[in-house]
Amino acid sequence: MIATASVTGLMRDIEHLGIDLRRGGYSRPMFSTAEADLRSWFIAEAERRDLSVEPDLNGAIWAWWDLPNGNREDALITGSHLDSVPGGGQFDGPLGVASALVALDELQKREISRDRALSIVVFPEEEGSRFGVACLGSRLMAGAISPDVARNLRDAEGNTFAEIARKHGLDPEHIGPQPELMAQVGAFVELHVEQGRGLIDLNQPIAIASSIIGHGRWRISVYGQGNHAGTTLMSDRRDPMIAAARMVVKIRDLATGESDARATVGRLQPVPGGTNVIASRVDFWIDVRHPDDAVTAHLVEDIREQAELIAAEESCTMEFREESISPTVSFDASLSKRLQESLPSAPILSTGAGHDAGVLAASIPSAMIFVRNPSGISHSPEEYVEDADAELGGTALADALQPLLLNVSSRAEA
Amino acid sequence: MIATASVTGLMRDIEHLGIDLRRGGYSRPMFSTAEADLRSWFIAEAERRDLSVEPDLNGAIWAWWDLPNGNREDALITGSHLDSVPGGGQFDGPLGVASALVALDELQKREISRDRALSIVVFPEEEGSRFGVACLGSRLMAGAISPDVARNLRDAEGNTFAEIARKHGLDPEHIGPQPELMAQVGAFVELHVEQGRGLIDLNQPIAIASSIIGHGRWRISVYGQGNHAGTTLMSDRRDPMIAAARMVVKIRDLATGESDARATVGRLQPVPGGTNVIASRVDFWIDVRHPDDAVTAHLVEDIREQAELIAAEESCTMEFREESISPTVSFDASLSKRLQESLPSAPILSTGAGHDAGVLAASIPSAMIFVRNPSGISHSPEEYVEDADAELGGTALADALQPLLLNVSSRAEA
Repeated sequence: MIATASVTGLMRDIEHLGIDLRRGGYSRPMFSTAEADLRSWFIAEAERRDLSVEPDLNGAIWAWWDLPNGNREDALITGSHLDSVPGGGQFDGPLGVASALVALDELQKREISRDRALSIVVFPEEEGSRFGVACLGSRLMAGAISPDVARNLRDAEGNTFAEIARKHGLDPEHIGPQPELMAQVGAFVELHVEQGRGLIDLNQPIAIASSIIGHGRWRISVYGQGNHAGTTLMSDRRDPMIAAARMVVKIRDLATGESDARATVGRLQPVPGGTNVIASRVDFWIDVRHPDDAVTAHLVEDIREQAELIAAEESCTMEFREESISPTVSFDASLSKRLQESLPSAPILSTGAGHDAGVLAASIPSAMIFVRNPSGISHSPEEYVEDADAELGGTALADALQPLLLNVSSRAEA
Repeated sequence: MIATASVTGLMRDIEHLGIDLRRGGYSRPMFSTAEADLRSWFIAEAERRDLSVEPDLNGAIWAWWDLPNGNREDALITGSHLDSVPGGGQFDGPLGVASALVALDELQKREISRDRALSIVVFPEEEGSRFGVACLGSRLMAGAISPDVARNLRDAEGNTFAEIARKHGLDPEHIGPQPELMAQVGAFVELHVEQGRGLIDLNQPIAIASSIIGHGRWRISVYGQGNHAGTTLMSDRRDPMIAAARMVVKIRDLATGESDARATVGRLQPVPGGTNVIASRVDFWIDVRHPDDAVTAHLVEDIREQAELIAAEESCTMEFREESISPTVSFDASLSKRLQESLPSAPILSTGAGHDAGVLAASIPSAMIFVRNPSGISHSPEEYVEDADAELGGTALADALQPLLLNVSSRAEA
């Protein structure tokens, strides 16, 4: 057992990693130097605590606080991720990892009795910022994405996941479902910075999650005719940039017309992308979310139909592909109820953000704890957590985990 | 003297350099490996012809066919560029360089008498694809851009021209006007692939240029509020992507409403550019061209006003910056007349494309020869030149240069 670290102290140890001077904030994509340094930091912190550090086949890192008898049946897991969106904040992901380490210190200091092993897990590519599919590590483990599809995902430079993984020591031939590991896990509790304004409005530091609203990503490629910007008359053009721009506006209008829907185009790439070149193709991505999966499906279908019309009007063609889809997830009711018993003043909030806990919730009882973000802004350098709230989060996670660690017998009796 | 090479043979020698498998076509930006290989190829071809190869202080390469007495007064120059737009064709630039080498072979074979030195020049960064300012080499030489501005131009990775130039052996402290070199040049004849449909419509292989219509580049940065795509309600957004998309459509509409105007957005970058991130900023570039510079100025002012309105409507702000502007250029009348005497069947065409000859025309009598492009498409992999037309171009350039090489005395007498 080591002296109890503080959440803010751990966060400060990594605040220099992955600073993005160009965009502001942090860029920590999967397999970047910054992400590798963060992983090394986590492994060192886990080893300092005598945890058994075990990478899995999909690039996640598991740090086990085993029982004296080594039994991992019905284990409890906590943790989060260390990767970031480009130009994101420093809390989205790492706060959950730092809080897990501090909660473990706290539980060891409390000398609690327990009959469940605890593992702190760091999942890779939660943001999907490099290869386009969010929660890639947990999806692979849970069988929610096929290894073949994952191997062929490409980053912005056109490299496949398989190529890049191999370069960084992860064998792409062996990625995929891990049923034996999954079978060991009895519950997952993920702490995360809140990404909206729920706790600001309620004037509370900590919340328990009720659900993650459904979300998906679709990619539209608009094809026109590349040509010279100076020699091609306006009337002779088939410019996919015009069609794409009209689609972006139409998508916003359609989403605004649907109560509680969110649709976003945050990534758009003209090809070839020269100032004096009419693009031959424009690729862009749509992120669509709604609490009701039927509404999401309907909205995406409307978007597709309107986009087809616009493409035709601009003498362009288009492809519309689903890249990922996650239905609305309600977290495990009995697990959330036990968290409420441990954290009686914490309100219950739903969230529009996806998480590894949302992926695993399909097969493992999962729950989430949110820590207040006084800016209400996330995926941005302005994301923020007050020091006092960060420490409250670490304690809340320890309080939530403590009774759960006595769970095996109670579950067996139930 | 070496055996006369063919234009198509020379083009074939370089057709493997800078192939862009991802975009299609060729990408040969300044200081790339492909561009360096093309420069080495040119230097080798010049040395095989015993030309005196002299790089200038701005990264251009001059290959001199000197007079026996070494006099370079009132020299005649020809040539073009070797860099390309991203995903461009193989003829835009290199055809003029290959044709110049072949024309020189042909003139040597004809054993012409002459009293002017001839130099083949390769200008760098004609497309402005890397550092954003087209015809950078000729602009620097002619004093049409200040060395300080050039040194601080940035590429897409944020590197300055000065930094990259130094890495590639070009001293950024010594770039800038070269009045002594300029004073030696009596005339410039540039051969280039046609970038529009003029020669297709006239059913002719070769044309002489009358003018280059005025053009400029402006950069718009739209600023909003970066945030999480899932947790931010549509009504709470200040999304610069929506504002930028509306501006792109408006720019097209304004240009379409102005006869003979062209306005293009071919490059657009959301920042940070994540799928699940509302952008905090969108940068895009507008290329505007019109034969009447007053109309261009008026159109750009309209664009700026409408863009300001859209930004305000979307609760965003914007910056609007001129990056470069080139007025409409009429080529030297007496030089063009002498070209017409040598190429009596060649029609006279204006062009919407910018060229180094357009930059130098402000201070040196300049002219251009265009070779038919049967696709009518340029800055695209579909740009094309028939072998027979390429050879006709080489011969036409030799025919045009031959009488001009006897020019010194006639000019002195005039």
